[in-house]
Amino acid sequence: MDNSSIDSRVKPLAIIRVTDAGWEERDDVLVKEWPLTIYVNGQEIVTLLTSPEHIEDLAVGFLSAEGFIQDPGQITDLRGDYSKGQVFVESTLSSIAEKTFMKRYITTGCGKGTTFYDVTDARMSRNLEENKLKVSPSQILRLMRDMQGMSQLYQQTGGVHSAALCDGEKVVIYREDIGRHNATDKIMGKCFREGISLKDKLLLTSGRISSEILLKVAKMGIAIIVSRSAPTDLAVRLGQELGMTIVGFVRGQRMNLYSHPWRVAG
Amino acid sequence: MDNSSIDSRVKPLAIIRVTDAGWEERDDVLVKEWPLTIYVNGQEIVTLLTSPEHIEDLAVGFLSAEGFIQDPGQITDLRGDYSKGQVFVESTLSSIAEKTFMKRYITTGCGKGTTFYDVTDARMSRNLEENKLKVSPSQILRLMRDMQGMSQLYQQTGGVHSAALCDGEKVVIYREDIGRHNATDKIMGKCFREGISLKDKLLLTSGRISSEILLKVAKMGIAIIVSRSAPTDLAVRLGQELGMTIVGFVRGQRMNLYSHPWRVAG
Repeated sequence: MDNSSIDSRVKPLAIIRVTDAGWEERDDVLVKEWPLTIYVNGQEIVTLLTSPEHIEDLAVGFLSAEGFIQDPGQITDLRGDYSKGQVFVESTLSSIAEKTFMKRYITTGCGKGTTFYDVTDARMSRNLEENKLKVSPSQILRLMRDMQGMSQLYQQTGGVHSAALCDGEKVVIYREDIGRHNATDKIMGKCFREGISLKDKLLLTSGRISSEILLKVAKMGIAIIVSRSAPTDLAVRLGQELGMTIVGFVRGQRMNLYSHPWRVAG
Repeated sequence: MDNSSIDSRVKPLAIIRVTDAGWEERDDVLVKEWPLTIYVNGQEIVTLLTSPEHIEDLAVGFLSAEGFIQDPGQITDLRGDYSKGQVFVESTLSSIAEKTFMKRYITTGCGKGTTFYDVTDARMSRNLEENKLKVSPSQILRLMRDMQGMSQLYQQTGGVHSAALCDGEKVVIYREDIGRHNATDKIMGKCFREGISLKDKLLLTSGRISSEILLKVAKMGIAIIVSRSAPTDLAVRLGQELGMTIVGFVRGQRMNLYSHPWRVAG
């Protein structure tokens, strides 16, 4: 059952368009917002609201981003059910304590309290300054144009976020999702499952760069994050501390460098 | 201590602007992303990432949206501390069980599972079809222009969401926040504290209309939600069920009506 087609991600609806010329009924297309429940060893972990595709990647990306699984070998079975909106993960790990999960999830997903402990974790766990990847402004501009050219669902519905994993030359993986974090988690999940290296990649996102998305990307070992939009002061402070290059407001022929600009070779 | 000034919401930073003319260092302004921890009767409830202003309104709006408090009389003391990023709420309610809280919070904040029970709750708790508020397209267009004219922080940083509570004629309360839900919660909190009626108001938002924001607004008894952007199919389905009017893509002289268009009088 292929649920990755455009059709499965949208829903037609008759709407009323109001213009200064008057009212007209017309057929519109809405982006689907679809609840997906993730189970680990039979235990319900979380329900995410997502676009109904790449749900196995989303489950794995979410679980790895949240620190449940550190190694693909810890996954013994993975089965997505599009008809029920469920993903079942079988893992060698003993069942996950809800409390631990909640704490972690709240941390990165809802901003509960321990954000700054996480920063420490991230700083301890890897030093992104050792990542010497470089990219030129012209490469960044081209990759951003390429990503925007791929945003089929956005052009159709205006209702999704885009993320693109790129090497210096091209977009390697592109995802769109109604969820702010899901597009990135779907990319991370695919890379985690397939052992795709991230240290030689950069991540482009259509959304603002908040502390949450920055930490998620930093934990994956990606040293360059690029957005059409703005970073927050907290994201920039974390980027400076973690050795991460933040590029924002990539529009037309311009961009802003907010931290570790040395990776963007003039 | 006044933390509501523009200055407290932004942070200056020296950045590098790259253009086809070359590189230049310049002074930029970033939007602040600031952790605020809410305590009820001394118990830590949640930390939200927010813009540092109107924090008492945010705490009350969050607690009422999450169903902790149903009545302003349940709040015996309310004290915000901008220096520490904390709000202390003293309540007549016995202390809140973390588990219950988590469940509710995950529901509306992180999309865990029980979204649809919530829908039922909302449908049972109030029938918005009884709300006969009407507004004309020209009023909607003018209110949207008014809201956009107020978005000082957005024009400065490009990094925030806007929300405006309006009567048919004017914007009554306007808030901007880095958090997708915070701008709305700050409005709701002020109305809850001051007993401002919501049934004769509409809510305008700069963001997409997801099921989460729609349920939040519906639970407050607001029957009309308006956005410059797109609703999801789930939000529209809920709007149809709950008797709510959804107006999207309000741009230039146009808008789309997705549910209960009868409230938009031609």
